[in-house]
Amino acid sequence: MNAADATRSIGVFDSGVGGLTVLKALQAEMPHERLVYLGDTARLPYGTKSPASIARYACQATALLQQRDIKMLVVACNTASAVALDALREQMQPLPVIGVVVPGATAAVTAKPGGRHLVLATEATVRLGAYRAAIHSLDPQAAVDELACELLVSLAEEGWNDGAIGEAIVQRYLEELPDAARRPDSVILGCTHFPLLRDTFRAVFDDGVAIVDSANTTARAARELLAELGIARDDDADGDLTLLATDGATRFARVGGQFLGRDLTWKDIEVVDL
Amino acid sequence: MNAADATRSIGVFDSGVGGLTVLKALQAEMPHERLVYLGDTARLPYGTKSPASIARYACQATALLQQRDIKMLVVACNTASAVALDALREQMQPLPVIGVVVPGATAAVTAKPGGRHLVLATEATVRLGAYRAAIHSLDPQAAVDELACELLVSLAEEGWNDGAIGEAIVQRYLEELPDAARRPDSVILGCTHFPLLRDTFRAVFDDGVAIVDSANTTARAARELLAELGIARDDDADGDLTLLATDGATRFARVGGQFLGRDLTWKDIEVVDL
Repeated sequence: MNAADATRSIGVFDSGVGGLTVLKALQAEMPHERLVYLGDTARLPYGTKSPASIARYACQATALLQQRDIKMLVVACNTASAVALDALREQMQPLPVIGVVVPGATAAVTAKPGGRHLVLATEATVRLGAYRAAIHSLDPQAAVDELACELLVSLAEEGWNDGAIGEAIVQRYLEELPDAARRPDSVILGCTHFPLLRDTFRAVFDDGVAIVDSANTTARAARELLAELGIARDDDADGDLTLLATDGATRFARVGGQFLGRDLTWKDIEVVDL
Repeated sequence: MNAADATRSIGVFDSGVGGLTVLKALQAEMPHERLVYLGDTARLPYGTKSPASIARYACQATALLQQRDIKMLVVACNTASAVALDALREQMQPLPVIGVVVPGATAAVTAKPGGRHLVLATEATVRLGAYRAAIHSLDPQAAVDELACELLVSLAEEGWNDGAIGEAIVQRYLEELPDAARRPDSVILGCTHFPLLRDTFRAVFDDGVAIVDSANTTARAARELLAELGIARDDDADGDLTLLATDGATRFARVGGQFLGRDLTWKDIEVVDL
């Protein structure tokens, strides 16, 4: 790898708009880097699909980002991180790939060593047990419970981020758990949509519970890895952002603006075919 | 078309499992017919996708059903009916195609002539205004309001069919409407997921409000059209059912069983590639 690689972009991939929470953290951590974000909105949600389909879609999305000459891939989708990270690493080699599961698990065990962690995620992420494995490899004493909460994905997309409806939905999901699991030390937001619902989770869980998401720890891990590999861009460069989606620029702009925390229009989104 | 065509199957297409409510009505109306149901679970939901993608997916699904030698296509998905019916008719000609929008509109204007109708549907169905056009062509005096309710799709898939959470969600959506629209004469369930939430709608709307879904009127229209074309199967024949899905047999069986009103296992589902 030569020094010229530093000027290339960081590719960020998600099943839709949820990964923009990770993108926002990457921008804050590395304002000088060029970022290319691809949301596979034509085929979202990944969370209810089979591992084989999720892996195929993730590899196709990565191939498209590779054509954009990226120097690193950040898999901002928890489901794709849980299912397809090995396949994507193979496809990207020798270039680095970072998923959101290990950074999320790291944040949780750092906040509450030896604690009891509750992972809220999609069906596919829970079924694969990726957070459980990541947490136990970092902290064998930790206890882990996992809960699939599909309805919270739609809730966040609808923009109903706080209030009685969201709280009632979270409470209803918690009823599926044994008593002890309902009083965790940390709640891991194991889906990129869920950080939008932070106020809802804060209202449901006790003040002492750490609400953990992967965005900041993933961004930090990405910055450190680029530095380590010597392919970080100069700090005084101007960063930029390209937004790609596989369908629905108008909807991407409307919903995505909420996640990114600024107004977007359909003209900001380039629609690509996979 | 020759008499042998009568022994062929009726193809039923939906973006996922919601169309099983229509399939159930078709079975009840024509127990002697052979039915082949295809749920495009790999690419659901259609309701938030662009018209171009929806039409492409619907045409691919129809091509697969054509390979199964069907004599008629029933488009059980409201979104695909709203977006792609003309394209599917062209592809299927000279064989007949029935969507769910016109039968649903017919049921509503028959129940409440000259009335005010509230259409609850997906974003794409509302954006296309297909119900509005169908109702006005049948009853120019009718008033029509349309409301996109994406969250109700996930609610039905989760099986939370009645209770306070669903009622609160419907009430919250109704707040988007002007006062008069919140007191309709009929509520049209313009998404095949919504008949599962009938108890929720009954709790929210006054007793005098007609809750209309397309399933029964679509099944009746299909039976009449087959008879008219002379391709109905003999009444004393034994019907059968083939269930196809593009992804996730296990999830299809679990969620689909709720819609069909009987237990399914993954072995009942044939996974096909589109």
